Amino acid sequence: MTAQTTCPPAFLALAHAMADAAAETIRPWFRKRIAVDAKADASPVTIADRDAETAMRRMIEAAFPEHGIRGEEFGACRTEADWIWVLDPIDGTKSFLSGSLAFGTQIALLHRDDPVLGLINQPITGERWLGTGTTATLNGAPIRTSDRTRLDEAILYTSAPEQFDRARHDRFTALAAKVRFSRFSHDCYAAGLLALGGIDLLVESNVFDYDILPQIPILEAAGGIVTDWDGQPLTVAPQYGTVLMAANEKIHQAALEALR
Amino acid sequence: MTAQTTCPPAFLALAHAMADAAAETIRPWFRKRIAVDAKADASPVTIADRDAETAMRRMIEAAFPEHGIRGEEFGACRTEADWIWVLDPIDGTKSFLSGSLAFGTQIALLHRDDPVLGLINQPITGERWLGTGTTATLNGAPIRTSDRTRLDEAILYTSAPEQFDRARHDRFTALAAKVRFSRFSHDCYAAGLLALGGIDLLVESNVFDYDILPQIPILEAAGGIVTDWDGQPLTVAPQYGTVLMAANEKIHQAALEALR
Repeated sequence: MTAQTTCPPAFLALAHAMADAAAETIRPWFRKRIAVDAKADASPVTIADRDAETAMRRMIEAAFPEHGIRGEEFGACRTEADWIWVLDPIDGTKSFLSGSLAFGTQIALLHRDDPVLGLINQPITGERWLGTGTTATLNGAPIRTSDRTRLDEAILYTSAPEQFDRARHDRFTALAAKVRFSRFSHDCYAAGLLALGGIDLLVESNVFDYDILPQIPILEAAGGIVTDWDGQPLTVAPQYGTVLMAANEKIHQAALEALR
Repeated sequence: MTAQTTCPPAFLALAHAMADAAAETIRPWFRKRIAVDAKADASPVTIADRDAETAMRRMIEAAFPEHGIRGEEFGACRTEADWIWVLDPIDGTKSFLSGSLAFGTQIALLHRDDPVLGLINQPITGERWLGTGTTATLNGAPIRTSDRTRLDEAILYTSAPEQFDRARHDRFTALAAKVRFSRFSHDCYAAGLLALGGIDLLVESNVFDYDILPQIPILEAAGGIVTDWDGQPLTVAPQYGTVLMAANEKIHQAALEALR
């Protein structure tokens, strides 16, 4: 779902300002004792997640009150709007709670289901991945996915080995057996590593729009390919059964075969 | 194996200088295309690992030629010496190759099998954990392990879920089922998170002296406990079948029961 529309500069500026505001909200809680609540799906959530999303939602309401919002913590509003912001204040809350740096704030902007902007921001290191149209950058410098095409040279990431049902676990295991090595527990940070050529494949299962949509404009502009595990392109949807992100066409094809 | 001997200031200064030198060697290779060799145990190694260990070994030879050395990449020398340096230039080479920050340089100093100094340095973020005697610090600020005592509130890390043989996998799974959540792929960085109270339990299997010994002085001085999975204290040895690192005595006991 490559972006057809250019991101208006005012919306890009808002995305940067929201990432800054979320980082300011999150930073004081990093590596501090913080209360943890369990959500309906048993995933943890904290005041840092909630306050960061609230800060971003207020900025959208103030600047473009006609825009829609779909956020991880506080749901959807104005979903019929032409412009929709998709917000994940902390993707990788488990890493955040652990004191690990493998988490980030994610922001996407959709124009009639066309993802015109994707942003991943690491609030502690200050790493900011941005994808708009045909340009992908890390802190302003252009990035490019890897050109490794062989599975036995490829590095595979997935967020959690326990996320898969039985059938998908078998498919994942078949792919993992063919790559150089597999690693876990990096959430959106792994998408950032894929976009800059550090890793080659990222697979997920049972993820939400706010987990994935912000990563697509970055990965596609950096040269990567995003489909489901059967090679079908993703469309905008609230949830995805399977996601395969690959550095280039050849490794994507090889991964699809191994997943089959 | 709590340290009985104070670390002489000249040796502490050398440890800091070696961590600086290793970081300078490693940094230019971070997130660059780099050749990967497979070692006898199939784990990856790069020029960054080798050059960083070489730099540290040269500094020891120049300053204290009578000291012994046990390094991951270039083996042991003068192992009968009173003072022995244990070096792991890059613990978490898979993270390093991926562009993740979850890796570090590890240094331990043993005085007749007494671990008087442990150091973990993250070359990119500049985070430096140090343990000497009864003091544990992160970049000079005192750190303390968590006081969480209940498994259902605990965060568990292990480097690789695929590292366990069948029996140990079952024991690990029994523990993982009782904790708040488990995470992976952080190597020595997880020991750093345990020392500063972010996580509560760290278990490993089939690890080497250079993987573990640098972590012990940090963890013990921060309030943690290090044993094997049966509660036996670790002694200096080339390899460890199982390692359990816990934030405090109560969570250590609870983890031992779950692993039984």
